[in-house]
This record gives sequence, C-alpha cells and structure tokens, in this order.
Amino acid sequence: MLCGMPQPDGPLARLRRGHESLVLGLLRKHGPLSRAELGRLSGLSRTTLYDIVAALVDSGAVATAAPATDAAGKRGRGRPVEKLTLNPGAGQALGIDFARRAVHVAAVNVAHEVIGSAGEAHAADLPWEERIDLAERLVGTLGQGALRLSSLSAIGVGVVGPVGAPGEEATRAGDSDGLPGLLAKRFGVPVLVDNNTRLAALAEATWGAAAGDEDVLYLKMSYGVGGGLIVGGSLHRGAYGLSGEFGHITVEPGPDGRPCECGGTGCLETVASAGAVLDAAREAGCDVADFPALIAAVEGGDAAARGVFDRVGTAVGEVLAATCNAIGPGVIVLGGEVAAAGAALLEPVERALSAHIQPIARHRVDLRRAAIDESGGALGAIALVLHESPLLSRYPAQEPGSEEEDDA
Amino acid sequence: MLCGMPQPDGPLARLRRGHESLVLGLLRKHGPLSRAELGRLSGLSRTTLYDIVAALVDSGAVATAAPATDAAGKRGRGRPVEKLTLNPGAGQALGIDFARRAVHVAAVNVAHEVIGSAGEAHAADLPWEERIDLAERLVGTLGQGALRLSSLSAIGVGVVGPVGAPGEEATRAGDSDGLPGLLAKRFGVPVLVDNNTRLAALAEATWGAAAGDEDVLYLKMSYGVGGGLIVGGSLHRGAYGLSGEFGHITVEPGPDGRPCECGGTGCLETVASAGAVLDAAREAGCDVADFPALIAAVEGGDAAARGVFDRVGTAVGEVLAATCNAIGPGVIVLGGEVAAAGAALLEPVERALSAHIQPIARHRVDLRRAAIDESGGALGAIALVLHESPLLSRYPAQEPGSEEEDDA
Repeated sequence: MLCGMPQPDGPLARLRRGHESLVLGLLRKHGPLSRAELGRLSGLSRTTLYDIVAALVDSGAVATAAPATDAAGKRGRGRPVEKLTLNPGAGQALGIDFARRAVHVAAVNVAHEVIGSAGEAHAADLPWEERIDLAERLVGTLGQGALRLSSLSAIGVGVVGPVGAPGEEATRAGDSDGLPGLLAKRFGVPVLVDNNTRLAALAEATWGAAAGDEDVLYLKMSYGVGGGLIVGGSLHRGAYGLSGEFGHITVEPGPDGRPCECGGTGCLETVASAGAVLDAAREAGCDVADFPALIAAVEGGDAAARGVFDRVGTAVGEVLAATCNAIGPGVIVLGGEVAAAGAALLEPVERALSAHIQPIARHRVDLRRAAIDESGGALGAIALVLHESPLLSRYPAQEPGSEEEDDA
Repeated sequence: MLCGMPQPDGPLARLRRGHESLVLGLLRKHGPLSRAELGRLSGLSRTTLYDIVAALVDSGAVATAAPATDAAGKRGRGRPVEKLTLNPGAGQALGIDFARRAVHVAAVNVAHEVIGSAGEAHAADLPWEERIDLAERLVGTLGQGALRLSSLSAIGVGVVGPVGAPGEEATRAGDSDGLPGLLAKRFGVPVLVDNNTRLAALAEATWGAAAGDEDVLYLKMSYGVGGGLIVGGSLHRGAYGLSGEFGHITVEPGPDGRPCECGGTGCLETVASAGAVLDAAREAGCDVADFPALIAAVEGGDAAARGVFDRVGTAVGEVLAATCNAIGPGVIVLGGEVAAAGAALLEPVERALSAHIQPIARHRVDLRRAAIDESGGALGAIALVLHESPLLSRYPAQEPGSEEEDDA
C-alpha cells in the first residue's frame, strides 16, 4: 500500500529514513543550504523534500537560519532565501547504560560532538529507582549545564540481556521490563532500549577501534560475556534480537561443563567472565582480593595468574575462530575488564584463533583492543537515538515510547 | 562528490540501485504505468525518474508499451500516454553453476519466471574447456528455443571456493581463475562470478525453503561442506568473501583431527562431506558402492549406516548451535547430498542443536530441508545478475566483465 501509514519497518519507512539521512548528511557536509539547493543535491522531488524537511524541523534536528544579508544570500529583488541548518543546540541526545554493576551516561550534540560522559559503580542489587536517581545525578554533571533535557527528542538506554523487537514479546523476562516507563516519567521524553553490549559494538564501530570498518565482531568480557556484530556495514540484531551471544557458545561440552546463567552448561561465559576468571585464579592459588588485583598480578608477571589467562584466551580464540569462519569479519574488537589483561590474554587468543580459523583467512582478520570502554553502551545508545549512522540503515525502526502501529 | 561518476559501491550508487529497484518493483506490482504514475508512486523527482527510466530502457529491462486505445488510456485530446512495462522477452538471464562434479544451468525471464533448467554430472577432473562445452550444450536445451543469448545482459556463474571482491586479488588461487574470460569469449556477454554455495543460499532465500525470511543460515553438505548467510535481509559476503565457511569450523581439535583441503585439520568438512560420510560408513562395515547406495541403506534401516549419520548429525548440530548463538538466524536450511538422508541426519542435528543453542533461542530457530537442490547455484547466479532482489541491496556491486572504476 502506498497510501496510508507506512509500516515502521516496511520498504517505504526505510526509504523515508534513507531520505532523512541523505538530507541530514548534506547539511552536515555543506553547511546551511536552501530548499532549492537541497533539492538539487538530493535528487528528491519538491513534494518529498518539503515533507522530509518539515518533519526534520518539527523534530528539532533541523533549524531554519536567518537569511544571509550579503549579495550571495539574495536572489534578485525577491525575498531572501531561507537556509536550513543542523540545529546545534536543540538536537542534543542522551545515552544511559544500566550495566550490571554501574551506570554510565553520555551526551552529544547534533554534530556528533560528545559534550560529556560520566559513570559510577554500584552494588549489583541496587533497586531500579535508585539506579535511575544515580543516572539523573550523573546527567546533571554533563556539559556544564549546556545539556537541555527539554530539547531531547528521545533517550537511548542500554540494558543487560536480550531485548525484544518493538511489538514483540520480550525474549527473556528481564528485570528491566518496566524501565522505559519509569525513565519516560522521570525525564519526560520517549525512551529507546536495546542490549547494552550490542550498543557498545555500535559505538566501537562508529567512533572507536573499528570506526569505518564494515564487518566487525565485538566481544566484551566483563561480568557477563557477550558481543555484537557489524555485518556488511550494518549493526546486526538477529531474527529475535539474539545475535552476538558469543558468551553462550559451548566450550566445555562434556559433563564437566559448569551451569550458566542462560540455563545451559559449559558456555564460554562460565570460563571467560570476570567472575569465572577470578574464581579460576583463586583455585590456581592466586591470593587476590578482586579482579583489579588479579590484573595487577598478571601485569606483575605472576605465573599462576598468567596460566589462567592463557587457558581463558585459548577458549576465547577457539570461539572466535569458529565465528570468523562463519561470518568473515575483517576486525575483531575485544573489550571489557578481562581484556584489560592485555597481552596475557591477547597472545593466547591470537594463537588459538590462528590455529583454528581457516588458513586462507589467517592474516586477514585484525584483532584489536576496544578504544571506548565503559562509556561504550551509553554512546551506542546515543547512536541508536540519532539513527543517523549508516550502520543503522537496516536496523529495525522503533517508534520511541509509542505502541507499534500496524496497518498490515 | 555529487558530480562525476559515482563509485560502484558508494552511497550514490546504492541510492541509484535503490531507485532502480523501486521502479522495477512498482512495474512488477502494478503492471504497465505511465511516467507520471511512476513519479507519483515513487516520490522521485521528474529528472531523477526520467534518468532512471532511460537507463532501464537502454538495458532492455523495461519496454515502452503501445498506448491503450480505450478511454482510460487517453487524456483529453492530447497524445495518448506511453506506458512503461517490464520487458518479458529481452531481459532473460542465464545462470551456470560449475560444481565439483557437475554442470547446472538455468534461465529466467525478467518477470522471474524460470523458463528452464538442466544439469549433467561429469568426472571431477574434466578440463574447463569441456565443462564449458557441456554448459553450452545444456543451455541449448532450455526454454525450447525461446532463450535468446543475444538479449542477455550478463551471465551469472557459480564456482567452487572463495571468490575475490571486484578489483581485489583472488583470495585463494582457484583453478577457475581464467573462467570468466573463457565464458565471455564463448557466449559474447559479460560474466559475473561468485561462490556457488553462497549463490545456492541466495536462491533458497529468494525462491526456496527460506523465501521471504530475513535471517537465514544455509548449510550445504555435498562433496564439500559450506554455506551462506542471509543477514538482516541481505546476502552476506564477509570482509574478504569468506563468510559461510561452516565446513572449516573445527570439530575435532585434538591430534586425531584429519587433514582438510583448506590446510587445517579436524574441520567439519572432514566429518560431514559426502566423501567423509561414505568412508566412515565403509569403516563401520557398510558394504555400499557409492553415496546413493549409502542413502538407500539408511532408508532401508541399516543400523551401521544410521549410526554413522547419527555421529555426523551431532557434529553438524554442535556447529549450527555455535553459529546460531553468534548470528541469530530464524531459519536454518540444510541442503546437499548428505541432507538427502532425511530424518536419519536431521534428528541428531536437531538434538545437538537443541542441547547447545542458548535455551532462550531453542524454539525460535526453524530447521528445514532445502527446496531447490542441484539447480540452486545456477538460480542464485541469475539472482546475482538481475541484482533486483532486496537480498542484494547491500551486496558489493560488480561491473560485469569490466575493470573496476575508482574515482576516489
């Protein structure tokens, strides 16, 4: 149907988002432009263009600039031509990452300049109301008061665990189910939610270690183990929002496999999460108080600690090799606390990867440390809200905070 | 740069292909349309639309139809309005699949109707010139003489093994390197080449067992083991044309792993290819002349033969579980001679998949037998040439038979 409301993810909605990105991209590249100039550069019809521009002005992403008073701004004796410009003030976007044991926030303006980020650790069992208090307090410290909450069009939020597609039942009963409503009430704006590790992958591929790469595998080894995929230049979600679950690939298939939070046994997460690594180190005789102390022991050359990371790195490298053979990424990015061990982890990873990836691909995959770290989830949430990245051009559309409309 | 030649895979070239698909899709859906009607339905500017239509008429994909003589076809006293239509005759496309031990050909018209397919087995060491003779003979049997080679704009060809991107060095020195030139000389048209298993995946997702699905994992177990991925509605190539290499995922990591053609050891292909399965069955005491005889033994309930497929299916299911956790497909399609064993293979595959996929995804992945079989590679090659499928909207553009132009 060409009349009526386009479906949120139908071909017409995608075409419309493509047109919006085109117009925003032209304004970012050329600076202020008249509607006529935009029409010429975009190839869009007058009707389509005016419609797109009106929606962008309504949303606050685009502002109408005062006409220039010099000769170039005038056409004969007619009215001066109104120019359109990206709105540097009103289009600020905010991202919040509710991780397992910390809250991180970040904000950017429409020009994609980060105006601030902040984070704070908390106990794993802190109630949601208090986590939101913490987020609000952190937001207050951003941008030296330049952040105007009232001008936000939406907030992007990262949470732990799978997140259902818009209109779909949640794929796992998460304790964050009521969160969007709580946040919308507190901040007075619509909220977009996605898995925080996938958002961190988006951030690494947008601004971080894999910026500009089209095929990226991001693996985060923190208190959970997960990841995200950029596939052919697009952030990949999977048929049910379940892609990038590298932490639940079986690495100990036998009866010795330890039980995992996902309900399975022998998953990579039971071997390579920060908690599992810390347990293994203590079993191996390392007398360390916490994970940072273990990292310090590794850096100090402690043989038992290095042995533990060697075994963990081998398991990680084998999983990466299998997924590389399947997916064919050009870049692998390793993030999270466990990756902070540096070479003690990366060397065995590289060795096992090289031994099990098909030989022809051996020198074609580039293994890198993450560049963004803790603020990745919050920054990725911002990218999700802006929805301007080409990485999101095929990502399912979300109507922030509204029920899905379906005219099928 | 908005002036000048768009890069083959730049955003403008993609936008142009998007506009072409839009116009072709509208003609397929609505039947003959005037330029004015196309303009209204597409939302494209007059200039852009006329430019796109002219190129499509030049290529033979679109024809100008005689104006209707009834009242609906006239507008007042002016000239009757010329209608545009898909050209059912001139736009025929041909696909050839050079498999390890067979040649398959298929042809369709612009309306995507298959006008014929044919195939013939040959010895594995048949020289290329003779394989091409065979292909030419098979093409002669198609469409009862309706196929006009002179009207083809290009031929799509599937070959075994990795294929480099346009302008990139071949990723593995294949013996098919000189093939495009030989074919172009023989048939007088440009030739597009890709991996034949990936093309079979494209065919299954376009016309076969996964038609309309957006996230598909296709695994083909034949004399080689490989596959292809549809990821978020796009055929996925991987950073170096090396995605879908499920056959080279390690399943026997220890010193017992058998050497594989890829240079590695213990790959799935050394366990699950038709040759490996036949060897294992003979070692298990099955007295069978060839692979079809083994399938017959399985169907007859031979316990040793069923035991072999049970072990193979378990290894396949474990690999599928790992790749499902990573990629999150909604549909898995199993093809190739080994899948012809039916339930004797599929039941252990499903059991191992279910045991190792993360529990939350267990009932979300649909395992299906391939619907297309031998002609899949040839049909996929046609889809590649037509380049009209939305599955190819993000696939790297190839300029058939020409050197890559680069104005960067």
